[in-house]
Amino acid sequence: MPPSAHPPPSHPPLLPRTLAADVSTYVGAPATRVRLSGWVHRRRRLSGLAFVVIRDRSGTAQVVVKDPAALAQVDTLTEETTVDVVGMTSPNSQAPGGVEIIDPLLIPLTSPAATPPIEMWRPTHSAGLPTMLDHGPVTWRHPRQQAKWQLAAASMHGFRRTLESQSFTEIQTPKLVESATESGANVFSVDYFGKRAYLAQSPQFYKQMCVGIFERVFEVGPVFRAEPHDTVRHLAEYVSLDAELGFIDDHRDVVAALRDVLAGMVESIHERASSAVELLDVDIPRVPAELPVIHFREALEIVGAPSDEPDLAPAHERALGAWAKERHDSDFLVVEGYPMVKRAFYTSPQPDDPRWSNSFDLLFRGLELVTGGQRLHRYDDYVAALTQRGEALSPYEGYLETFRHGMPPHGGFAIGLERWTARLVEAENIREVTLFPRDLHRLAP
Amino acid sequence: MPPSAHPPPSHPPLLPRTLAADVSTYVGAPATRVRLSGWVHRRRRLSGLAFVVIRDRSGTAQVVVKDPAALAQVDTLTEETTVDVVGMTSPNSQAPGGVEIIDPLLIPLTSPAATPPIEMWRPTHSAGLPTMLDHGPVTWRHPRQQAKWQLAAASMHGFRRTLESQSFTEIQTPKLVESATESGANVFSVDYFGKRAYLAQSPQFYKQMCVGIFERVFEVGPVFRAEPHDTVRHLAEYVSLDAELGFIDDHRDVVAALRDVLAGMVESIHERASSAVELLDVDIPRVPAELPVIHFREALEIVGAPSDEPDLAPAHERALGAWAKERHDSDFLVVEGYPMVKRAFYTSPQPDDPRWSNSFDLLFRGLELVTGGQRLHRYDDYVAALTQRGEALSPYEGYLETFRHGMPPHGGFAIGLERWTARLVEAENIREVTLFPRDLHRLAP
Repeated sequence: MPPSAHPPPSHPPLLPRTLAADVSTYVGAPATRVRLSGWVHRRRRLSGLAFVVIRDRSGTAQVVVKDPAALAQVDTLTEETTVDVVGMTSPNSQAPGGVEIIDPLLIPLTSPAATPPIEMWRPTHSAGLPTMLDHGPVTWRHPRQQAKWQLAAASMHGFRRTLESQSFTEIQTPKLVESATESGANVFSVDYFGKRAYLAQSPQFYKQMCVGIFERVFEVGPVFRAEPHDTVRHLAEYVSLDAELGFIDDHRDVVAALRDVLAGMVESIHERASSAVELLDVDIPRVPAELPVIHFREALEIVGAPSDEPDLAPAHERALGAWAKERHDSDFLVVEGYPMVKRAFYTSPQPDDPRWSNSFDLLFRGLELVTGGQRLHRYDDYVAALTQRGEALSPYEGYLETFRHGMPPHGGFAIGLERWTARLVEAENIREVTLFPRDLHRLAP
Repeated sequence: MPPSAHPPPSHPPLLPRTLAADVSTYVGAPATRVRLSGWVHRRRRLSGLAFVVIRDRSGTAQVVVKDPAALAQVDTLTEETTVDVVGMTSPNSQAPGGVEIIDPLLIPLTSPAATPPIEMWRPTHSAGLPTMLDHGPVTWRHPRQQAKWQLAAASMHGFRRTLESQSFTEIQTPKLVESATESGANVFSVDYFGKRAYLAQSPQFYKQMCVGIFERVFEVGPVFRAEPHDTVRHLAEYVSLDAELGFIDDHRDVVAALRDVLAGMVESIHERASSAVELLDVDIPRVPAELPVIHFREALEIVGAPSDEPDLAPAHERALGAWAKERHDSDFLVVEGYPMVKRAFYTSPQPDDPRWSNSFDLLFRGLELVTGGQRLHRYDDYVAALTQRGEALSPYEGYLETFRHGMPPHGGFAIGLERWTARLVEAENIREVTLFPRDLHRLAP
């Protein structure tokens, strides 16, 4: 049966569908008629014989074609064409799952697919990043690409599960905001019914407001940075895993919550994405029972930087990552006490020395992954902090109202999802692990 | 100890914190010193005695003050001020949880809070919607408001849990897009590095592309509609619960997936938000094993509308809701077969009569809650559909590439989170259940 542009619908199905991963359940069973549905992942034509590998969401299965008419059909079933396959199970220790499908009826579901931009069946591909990104809807089908996102999806699951188990409430806060207040720079502006609005750079203000409501909150959602630099670690839109909690003693309680979240993300990866871990040979970190913490001052000493440096350079972060590995056998290192001058106005100062802050960065294998800390919680402190920075209060009206009506000491953190995944798979460019990246030059697909 | 603008930090705590809901564990136990942390929810001053109700994320607990100095302090502990309370447990069958806290030391964590816009302790409040929305960061603290969002949070949990258990992969797709393609109208435009970009009206195109990658996908995230009408059921930004799945026979498989999701959402509400259900006296729907389905043609007959009506009016939907309740004892009704002229170009026609479509709406208690259906999956069909509508292909390039490379028959649906919650609590206006609503007139807080 040659494929046509409009083959007849395949329903009602003759048989319920069997997933590729489930053909292994027929090992040792009598030959059984089954139906697979999936993509033609690979064809190998030998003399008088063809192997067709079918890929579906569960994995791959092998189909063996010997019938001359079916062999002629295989020539037209180009890679990525979707098909139904009805055939008999047959043991073959060489086939994926130990079972292959023989004597198949092949029912194409579309016209033959166009040649894909990369060969899906090759274990690795040599396509450059522009090809991968330009053709994302197709190149993400490669099993190694799929696997990268499975790590991301499992991480989101672990993030939420951990926080839900500690009575955090999930929130969804607006991405359209009135003021470009949080940093001023790098904000996208939106035509909002003839007025100007902005895209939120983070849910920071809203998650703090929601601490006043729910005490402990989290949000997984997009954040927007009009990042004018073309770097391997910045995106114009990325997924932020945000948490915020009230009634803390200080930022160390936030570090403890972060540790639990990281442990939960790692646990979820082991549980839900083990085949991705295996395929990509990912070195999944161990999360220590307590994250090692050093003060910013100590960090400068360790890397041999002048004691008045206000920030850590990427090279410093790498050196600290190596130090944490050697000294603490830890892939993670918390640096607390960042200078107040480099932190946002809502940051709580270190009580015994207000040059430093009760805030921290988490380095993961020598790269900044998380920023967090304790926030101010008293209205008067907000007024003082904004005034000291020469800012008017009026753009902060709704935010400040929260603090006039009683707020607990609180703090939180934000994890960049793509940055986390990139570091897990040692991607050179964060775009390799972003489903459809957005940057200075890229707005499609 | 009078409150001061900058009270000393309360850490290190003398005692680990006890949640308000956990004071009940001291029923029958010897008097024990405990520490509560929370908001002053209510003060009741009697002669020589005051009751202070403390609210935290778990509920409320009662503190009894008799000491003259502490009584004077209570006068300054205005409602919503955050406090630590250290005191002794004491049985009192009239107190929440059967235990109250006596002989308390009250440690304010901030200055006295300003008078809140509504009284949190009143079981219901009579504030109008503008007051509620203008002061959202505070008014959402009211237990009835909190409870509404707990229904939403539990619903999101149930949505994800159901789909993850059916091997759907969570995706996060870009909200900044290149073309205003999906409907053309009602799109927000963004200044994107000097070019024009748009805010995605839905993840529709991306979730379809991702069916090519993962076969079954879901996303929970914001969508944006530049809705120029000021109605009680539309928002400029809302949370969309999206799912899409491949290798379906037709849209009835999508309806089956939707049923499971609704059942999972309801189950999660019972499990995780039972106190919210009780407080709000919510009539949680029963989800039948199979959702009743009628054809659009039948729907017109049932409501007595002319057979050439292309759409259902709100009054029709209400009548159909009543019909479903009476005929099928169901709060849900699926109307399938909507006229193709009223559906998006990617909609799959009904195979035996292409005037109708393989798409559906789900009515929940007489209100449209979900739109879904089978999509086209063949490249040629997309070219024909767009051409017939007089549209150029070039703005759809990345999307169309997906279909040139093999796609299965697929479909999906989208649930509006706020609309679902609004219907559950019988809110007159969708803004009552939206954390920080955005509309024609409102961009803050």
